[in-house]
Amino acid sequence: MRVITTIEEMQNAILHAKKEGLSIGYVPTMGFLHEGHLTLMEKAREENDLVVISIFVNPLQFGPTEDLSSYPRDFGRDKELAQKQKVDYIFFPSVEEMYPRPSSVTVTVKERTNVLCGKSRPGHFDGVATVLTKLFHVVQPEKAYFGMKDAQQVAVVEGLVTDFHFPIEIIPVETVREKDGLAKSSRNVKLLTKEREQAPILYQSLLRAKEIIIEGERSPQKVISFITEMITEKTNAQIDYIEIYSYPMLKEVTELKGKFIIAMAVKFSKARLIDNIILEINEK
Amino acid sequence: MRVITTIEEMQNAILHAKKEGLSIGYVPTMGFLHEGHLTLMEKAREENDLVVISIFVNPLQFGPTEDLSSYPRDFGRDKELAQKQKVDYIFFPSVEEMYPRPSSVTVTVKERTNVLCGKSRPGHFDGVATVLTKLFHVVQPEKAYFGMKDAQQVAVVEGLVTDFHFPIEIIPVETVREKDGLAKSSRNVKLLTKEREQAPILYQSLLRAKEIIIEGERSPQKVISFITEMITEKTNAQIDYIEIYSYPMLKEVTELKGKFIIAMAVKFSKARLIDNIILEINEK
Repeated sequence: MRVITTIEEMQNAILHAKKEGLSIGYVPTMGFLHEGHLTLMEKAREENDLVVISIFVNPLQFGPTEDLSSYPRDFGRDKELAQKQKVDYIFFPSVEEMYPRPSSVTVTVKERTNVLCGKSRPGHFDGVATVLTKLFHVVQPEKAYFGMKDAQQVAVVEGLVTDFHFPIEIIPVETVREKDGLAKSSRNVKLLTKEREQAPILYQSLLRAKEIIIEGERSPQKVISFITEMITEKTNAQIDYIEIYSYPMLKEVTELKGKFIIAMAVKFSKARLIDNIILEINEK
Repeated sequence: MRVITTIEEMQNAILHAKKEGLSIGYVPTMGFLHEGHLTLMEKAREENDLVVISIFVNPLQFGPTEDLSSYPRDFGRDKELAQKQKVDYIFFPSVEEMYPRPSSVTVTVKERTNVLCGKSRPGHFDGVATVLTKLFHVVQPEKAYFGMKDAQQVAVVEGLVTDFHFPIEIIPVETVREKDGLAKSSRNVKLLTKEREQAPILYQSLLRAKEIIIEGERSPQKVISFITEMITEKTNAQIDYIEIYSYPMLKEVTELKGKFIIAMAVKFSKARLIDNIILEINEK
């Protein structure tokens, strides 16, 4: 495994690999790797000759009130974990390397941003799309892997790749869960004992919603009410949002059909958790 | 030579060429090819295994008052000319193919736009940068060729490629001129006989400016006055702008040093002509 810190060196290594006909799988991360990331790397390892991950905490996607400087970092540990996953290259550029001067161009995301978590993070997805445009040009993968835990990010990235015709296939990878169904997250350790016991209710409520939809419920509002009630009754969490949209366009739906996402964010005392499921109902 | 109209087919042809290790040179055009374009294709032919040109009149870069529908088109003639230049592929997509739905993402150009011709064309370079981002991903060339006649466009494209790390080299190609120095343009035929006789003064004034700079003049304002006087005295043209900026950043300069551009746009009765030269003064 090689750690590369400059764009030029990374592009040269990629050029070399492409000349040898090697396929490239890519996992972009902000580091502080957890099991979700490892699953992405595992998938990339299975499907490609060469696996590249990047570790870059992208200032562009942090809002002015979001604390960029306190974002957790541990490169030593990340490196060990990547090595275990048989990663070939870690691209680990400095902020100075990625943004040596104010950029003359930026990517603006015009759809799919003003819902779910994007609503409270103006500019966040512009930052994500801009850095991914840069990173995709550096790494030039055939396939890039993203976790479905952040389904909105996957939707935005699918839009970016489709509308800009990147010659890249986006591979969404299912959310990794604890045995009791709780979506894995580095934030779970911040849950109090009682909250940790309640937290599986989030995913359970999504699964119950799935059942009532399969049984015939077609009203988004009724499904949302059902989930709201279940979480309110069985946990002390405060609901940030529970929303249903078409997927991946993230447009409002008045009836549950086609492909759609049920997504939620709830706040426990010291941790805000998100979860979602994607369903598809195709009827005549 | 093959004409390809879909993105998928073009990307497949490129994938195939890359697998065979062929280098790709690319000339993006809006069609109605003239000698300037042919020079770009000639250069691309010399330097690459495969030459791809695109012909696409991009609606996104036309303003609401600019007449997209009357933009001249003649695909039959373009095809013949490209064939003579030994072009391998013409990528000739429909608007529907390039913009099947409102795009969820767009490229915004934040620098180098509010000067020269960009000043009177808000949004123009966003349209150029967005369509080139798409076309670069479709054609995936090692080298892309642009004429220096539109120096501001070259500057914007250099910014796009540098800041987004496209693995593409931009090759600026010198303006093709008539024997009397007039920059070739499809608009030259609109000049009245007397205007055609006067038009070489534009380039002559740039060459004279170069001389006085070499002789020691370092004030942009004095050079601009000199050119203004020469054009006003010797032609009936109306000056739209004569400006000097650093190149390629297109920042204002107070003293002539480093690399800079002297650019002008003047209006004859039925034709607006542009021209420019780029100079470099490196003194201790």
